[in-house]
Amino acid sequence: MATNGLNGTAQGAVNGDSKPATHRFNPHFTQAVINATGPKASPRVRQVTSSLIQHLHDFARENEITVDEWMAGLELINEAGRMSTDRRNEGQLVCDVLGFESLVDEITYKLASDATDEPTSTAILGPFWRVDAPKFQMGECIVSGIESKGDRTWMHGKVTDFRTGEPIEGVCLDVWHTAPNGLYEQQDPDQPDMNLRGRFTTGKDGKYNFYCLRPVPYPIPFDGPAGKILQALDRHPFRPAHIHFIISAPGYKPIVTQIFDRNSKYIEDDAVFAVKDSLLVDFIPITSDPKADFELPYDFRLATFEDAAKR
Amino acid sequence: MATNGLNGTAQGAVNGDSKPATHRFNPHFTQAVINATGPKASPRVRQVTSSLIQHLHDFARENEITVDEWMAGLELINEAGRMSTDRRNEGQLVCDVLGFESLVDEITYKLASDATDEPTSTAILGPFWRVDAPKFQMGECIVSGIESKGDRTWMHGKVTDFRTGEPIEGVCLDVWHTAPNGLYEQQDPDQPDMNLRGRFTTGKDGKYNFYCLRPVPYPIPFDGPAGKILQALDRHPFRPAHIHFIISAPGYKPIVTQIFDRNSKYIEDDAVFAVKDSLLVDFIPITSDPKADFELPYDFRLATFEDAAKR
Repeated sequence: MATNGLNGTAQGAVNGDSKPATHRFNPHFTQAVINATGPKASPRVRQVTSSLIQHLHDFARENEITVDEWMAGLELINEAGRMSTDRRNEGQLVCDVLGFESLVDEITYKLASDATDEPTSTAILGPFWRVDAPKFQMGECIVSGIESKGDRTWMHGKVTDFRTGEPIEGVCLDVWHTAPNGLYEQQDPDQPDMNLRGRFTTGKDGKYNFYCLRPVPYPIPFDGPAGKILQALDRHPFRPAHIHFIISAPGYKPIVTQIFDRNSKYIEDDAVFAVKDSLLVDFIPITSDPKADFELPYDFRLATFEDAAKR
Repeated sequence: MATNGLNGTAQGAVNGDSKPATHRFNPHFTQAVINATGPKASPRVRQVTSSLIQHLHDFARENEITVDEWMAGLELINEAGRMSTDRRNEGQLVCDVLGFESLVDEITYKLASDATDEPTSTAILGPFWRVDAPKFQMGECIVSGIESKGDRTWMHGKVTDFRTGEPIEGVCLDVWHTAPNGLYEQQDPDQPDMNLRGRFTTGKDGKYNFYCLRPVPYPIPFDGPAGKILQALDRHPFRPAHIHFIISAPGYKPIVTQIFDRNSKYIEDDAVFAVKDSLLVDFIPITSDPKADFELPYDFRLATFEDAAKR
C-alpha cells in the first residue's frame, strides 16, 4: 500500500545531488507533500508553496534538524506572533534581522526597474510608521517639545519625474524619524504624540523644505524573539541614523524609502540590512540659518504608473 | 563606502547557477547577511541560521516574492502565534500540514537508526497529548461514558528489546485516541475528562493488553492559519484513523509513535504526512470476547540508550 511517500528508503536517493546528508532520508517524501496540492489551488499559490516546502525540507535535511531544534524555533515563532499587535510587529522584526524584508523590497521594486536612469531607491517601511501624521506647510518644523540644540536640520529638495525631469505638483512627503534619545514617539511616553512626524505637499515647483533633527542610531526592540536571534548570532541590534519617507503623488507609483547619514555609526552593519549607497546623505554644517545647525539637500525621483509598468 | 552588501548590481551574478531569475537581484546580499553573524555565535547556531537565511533568500528570489505576498504570509504566521496556547499549538499545525514535523521526526530518529533490524518506527506527537493520563491495570478499558457498540477493541502485544528480543519490564505505554465523533476529549465538552487516554505498565513478561475503541478519521482544526493554507492548497484536513503512543522504559530511548488502521480512509493522503508502512495495523473482527468487536495485536521494540547511541 502506498502511503504518502514516507515509506521509501534511502537507496532510491536522487543522483547528482552533491549536498551531503540529503541521501540518508526518504527521497520521496518532499515530492509527496508537494503532490498533495489539489487541482483547484491557484498557479501562484502552487508555485510558491511548492518551492517553500522544497526549501524548508532541504534546509531540515542538510542540517539534520532534530525535533528539539524544530520545537525551539517554533516557540520563537509562536512567541513573535503573540507579541504582535497594532503597535508592534515582532514577526516582521524577525524577518528584518534575517534580511528578508530588505530582500523582498529589492525584488518588488526591481521587478519594475531594470533601467539605468532610475527612480529613487526604496528601503523597508519598518514597524514605526503611523497613519495620519500631522500636515504642515513648507518651511515648518516637525520637532515639538524637545530640546534639540546642536542637531537642528533644514532639509530641502525637489521631487521630479524620473523620466522627464519635470517637477511634480501635489506630491505628499510623509516623513518620520527618531528623537535624539533613539526612540520614536510611540515608544516614548515623554514625547508629544506625533512628534517628529509630518506630511508636506509640494506646489507647482515640486520643491519641499522643512525643519527636523539630525537622527541618531538606535537599537531595534530586542526584548523578543528578534532580540533572541540577534543574541544567538552574536549581533548588535543597532540601525544607523536615518529618516523615513513615503513619497506619493497622483498618477505616480509611491515609494517607501529611508535616507541614511553617511557618517553614522552602523552604516556598514545595519541590523536590518536596509542601507543602499544611493540613499546615503550628508548633513552639512551651516551657520547662516539661526533655526538650523545642518543643511540636508536631497531630491526624490518618481515614476508614473505607466512608466513603472513599462520598466 | 561598503554598506552591507546591498549595493552590488546584478552584473556580478554567480556563474553556473541555472536557476532562473536569481541573477536579477544583488548577488552579494545574502552572503552579507550571513557574514553579519558574530564570532561568539555557537557553531551549530551559525550553521543552521546561515543555511536558513540562504534557503529563505533563494526561495524569495526564485519566486520573486513581493512585499505584499510576504506581508500576507507574515500575517498568517503572526496569527498562528496569537492562536497558540497551552491547549493548542497552531504554529505546530502549520508545520504539520507542510510535512515539516514528520520530516524532522524522521531525521531525529534516523540519526540513530541505520540498521536493518530496527526499533519501532516513530511518528509525530501531534497537539493532543496530555500529561498525567490516568493509570490503569492491564486488561482495563480506557473508554468512559461513551456508547461504543460496534468498535470495541482489545489491543494486546509485547514490548521487547529490539536487539536481544527479550521482554522489557516496567515499560509505560501512554495511549490516546479520538472518540467515534472524531474529537479528542479536550476538544469535546460532552466527553469525560481524560476519556480515551491511559497509561499501562508492563510486568516481567513485557506484555500489555487493554480495551479501547477502533478510532475514526478526523479533521485537524482548520479554523486558523493551517486551515487557510490547506484551503489555498485545495487539500482536505483529514487524518486517517490512528492510535497515539509514547512508549518509555527505564534505560531505553522513549519513542513517540502512532499506529494506523490499514483500512481507514485517508491512509494514503494523511493531512500531516505521518503514515509509515511499518505502522499500519489490522483490526481483526472477533466474536470470542463479549467485551470486544475487534482484536488488535501489535508489538513494540525499544532500543537501550546505549544501543541507540551506537546506531
